[in-house]
Amino acid sequence: MIPTAEVSVSVLQSLSLRYDGSLWLLDQRLLPEEERWIDASAPEACVAAIQGLAVRGAPLIGVSAALCLAANAERGLSRAGLLSAAARLRAARPTAVNLMGAVDRVLAVIHAAPDDGLAEAVITEARALFTEDVALCAAMADHGAALIQDGEGILTHCNTGGLATAGIGTALGVIRRAHEQGKRLHVFVDETRPLLQGGRLTTWELQRLGVPYTLITDSMAALILRDGRAQRVLVGADRIARNGDFANKVGTYGLAALARFHGVPLYCVAPSTTVDPRCPDGAAIPIEARDPEEVRGARGQRWAPAEAPAENPAFDVTPASLVTAWVLETGVVWEGASVSGRPAPPLPRVM
Amino acid sequence: MIPTAEVSVSVLQSLSLRYDGSLWLLDQRLLPEEERWIDASAPEACVAAIQGLAVRGAPLIGVSAALCLAANAERGLSRAGLLSAAARLRAARPTAVNLMGAVDRVLAVIHAAPDDGLAEAVITEARALFTEDVALCAAMADHGAALIQDGEGILTHCNTGGLATAGIGTALGVIRRAHEQGKRLHVFVDETRPLLQGGRLTTWELQRLGVPYTLITDSMAALILRDGRAQRVLVGADRIARNGDFANKVGTYGLAALARFHGVPLYCVAPSTTVDPRCPDGAAIPIEARDPEEVRGARGQRWAPAEAPAENPAFDVTPASLVTAWVLETGVVWEGASVSGRPAPPLPRVM
Repeated sequence: MIPTAEVSVSVLQSLSLRYDGSLWLLDQRLLPEEERWIDASAPEACVAAIQGLAVRGAPLIGVSAALCLAANAERGLSRAGLLSAAARLRAARPTAVNLMGAVDRVLAVIHAAPDDGLAEAVITEARALFTEDVALCAAMADHGAALIQDGEGILTHCNTGGLATAGIGTALGVIRRAHEQGKRLHVFVDETRPLLQGGRLTTWELQRLGVPYTLITDSMAALILRDGRAQRVLVGADRIARNGDFANKVGTYGLAALARFHGVPLYCVAPSTTVDPRCPDGAAIPIEARDPEEVRGARGQRWAPAEAPAENPAFDVTPASLVTAWVLETGVVWEGASVSGRPAPPLPRVM
Repeated sequence: MIPTAEVSVSVLQSLSLRYDGSLWLLDQRLLPEEERWIDASAPEACVAAIQGLAVRGAPLIGVSAALCLAANAERGLSRAGLLSAAARLRAARPTAVNLMGAVDRVLAVIHAAPDDGLAEAVITEARALFTEDVALCAAMADHGAALIQDGEGILTHCNTGGLATAGIGTALGVIRRAHEQGKRLHVFVDETRPLLQGGRLTTWELQRLGVPYTLITDSMAALILRDGRAQRVLVGADRIARNGDFANKVGTYGLAALARFHGVPLYCVAPSTTVDPRCPDGAAIPIEARDPEEVRGARGQRWAPAEAPAENPAFDVTPASLVTAWVLETGVVWEGASVSGRPAPPLPRVM
């Protein structure tokens, strides 16, 4: 179902993104039943894909927005048109800072490039963001996999794999790398209500990778931790504040609290493109509120009363004090305060 | 849609059960969209209704099984036939002790009654179980409502109201009573995956009662507790062991751990028919494992890969040490050890 555009050395291809001058995205809303690719080259199509979660994952939406600008530069869109498209893409979702960071890098090029080199400069910068993300994933996977021992159970939330990045993923990339190293692992997959990224996407990825796993409802995670079946909790992040607080898919905070309650270490796996140096702490991270209808049902089916009042924060903030370590492409940053309960120090190696 | 059987003084009617010589159950699988009553008078129909969750709630399945036996006694089923039906009903689900307790009470009557008084004795005993449950609910509601202050937020899990009992409910009965007393409350309703008893049933009940509420996914409960929006957590129980450990809908244990983590009191609201004096502690409570397919999707729709390995314990056990108090029909039993972390003492007032 991958579009049959001409193959050339310049095609970029990841598990759910393809750039061949046009931007193609695997519609993640339809997984795992159907693998349908959509053309997200038009800025409004890419904004809709990001807002509707056809494409998701903090690193991947940043790369997608950048490559959308590249596709439009390739089509000769003017500097003014590119600036306007960049502004709309940058505002598509508020929480993941990777989107703002990636668009800002392309924006700097749009502003600075000469008229006769504008398109090439934009395309080069966007392509660099893709290839850099692949490398960031690989480096995180190496650092993280070194922490994991043979025979461990790993609990994870949401989807943080090849569907969330241009590379092999963040938290799920670590798991994949440890599996490739021959370590016997068992992954417990939170289904991740309301949008079921764990139940639909992480299961699908783990099945393709041949990693043993068990799907659970989010409400069963406490039992896995209590019973000693998971030695570590690995999650991704959508934004990391300067003090180490991080926003991630709703449910991460509760999982972090339960991990601490049961003495199980929790790791936040994310590239430095997810760190927001302008954000002092978690309270400064904007949390996207999505349609309550997503909580009243799932996948177009509603089971709650039609007018049931519901809340739907897409993310929550986990304080640095509940994090055992942050796994970045530069290495593992340990939270010295995680045991003593002292306020978390800043993350100097990240900044 | 309530069946139009002849009205007489002898009809028993609750929110989801009607006994008029036949046993009628509101099919809770179809709520809130459709209110369809099913005839569960035949033992196999009642067993199927209990196992398929057309009828659910620890107290209500006990009353339903007893009234099924009454319906069959009324139709002249022999002592041997009643004994056989009782055995099948008693084994329909393993965790809620109310089912065994109610059937055992009717079984004692089946064994002891004279031939010419068998039917009447069975009917009388089963009807007594219904009316007693109504009274148990009312007494629990009085004791529990006295704990609740004006303006509080209450977090609850699963469904524990008129759909789970013959009366006004256990935990939800307490909330209803406090609301009727004029206290301004706000209820946070865990949707309660996988079978969504909170999202489908508790919302429906609270809407009918006019109690303000907000539906959340189970993974958002930690945020409500963290932000001080719930002053108490109220849950029901399917079986309470002698030491105060209790089994309840899966997710209760995690909620109890999160309540303790955030310093929010948790109350287990259940009648003494839920206490199993033969059960020393939570480890001795059998936990029903249901079809993993319930975790792969919801309401007939599957979103996970068809062969995704999944676990589906229907219940979990919360240790007495995480309980602030048990609200029984006899009064409130405080857990003295809940703050100090010492092992919980037995519950002498319950035994």
